[in-house]
Amino acid sequence: MEKKTEVPIPQSEAVFSLGELTSSDNFTGKVWVNIMGASDSTLHARFGNVSFEPRARTNWHSHPGGQILLITEGRGYYQALGQPARLLKQGDVVEIPRNVMHWHGAAPDSEFAHIAISLNTDDRGAAWSGPVKDEEYNNLY
Amino acid sequence: MEKKTEVPIPQSEAVFSLGELTSSDNFTGKVWVNIMGASDSTLHARFGNVSFEPRARTNWHSHPGGQILLITEGRGYYQALGQPARLLKQGDVVEIPRNVMHWHGAAPDSEFAHIAISLNTDDRGAAWSGPVKDEEYNNLY
Repeated sequence: MEKKTEVPIPQSEAVFSLGELTSSDNFTGKVWVNIMGASDSTLHARFGNVSFEPRARTNWHSHPGGQILLITEGRGYYQALGQPARLLKQGDVVEIPRNVMHWHGAAPDSEFAHIAISLNTDDRGAAWSGPVKDEEYNNLY
Repeated sequence: MEKKTEVPIPQSEAVFSLGELTSSDNFTGKVWVNIMGASDSTLHARFGNVSFEPRARTNWHSHPGGQILLITEGRGYYQALGQPARLLKQGDVVEIPRNVMHWHGAAPDSEFAHIAISLNTDDRGAAWSGPVKDEEYNNLY
């Protein structure tokens, strides 16, 4: 019987470290978060590496100062509320405008990892809403 | 006779595209720049992928709003003026404080690539100074 690996991306291949499996209610499925910075608060930015098992995804949420996603591994989706989902692959970039409700996460058949850089933070974090329901996720494609 | 490759990182292995060989006087050696964003000016950020052949490096410069470097390939250096050079490898992160004079570039025996994210740009670009001279570069290590 094949043993299922506990991590989505072999660490020998990953560019950035996985970090810790999150227990946050802001995600569906297994998601690893590696907070990388910034320790310098005058940069007004927060950034880290986020890794998703297949089908794992953020809840709907928005960023008061906007966010950049840089896709480093696998395939996944970004969807802004009321828009079609955009398929993402390694090397792609997403500019998430300020205060736009959206989610991001892995494709059904692929791990997915991205660097996320929250901008213009001014001490305000993301505004979180509810999960992306299975009936939403299953009807993207 | 071995033919020397013209690009520092095989594109089949690179996470982000090389972009164009720059002709800017702000660098020593061959440097490729791939501007990736931001098209949304309200994010107050500019970012892209920068790839260096061995020994290639930026001039001394500073960023009014600070910058983040995310190392995606190879080995290189970051040095702030008056400080020891810091050896960097894939997966490392550098937070460059506002207005600190510094340079970054490849190690003598390795290609090097990083994502650079300039923050809090407010339409002000980097302030450029002179090249990192060979006698400075050769005495790092």
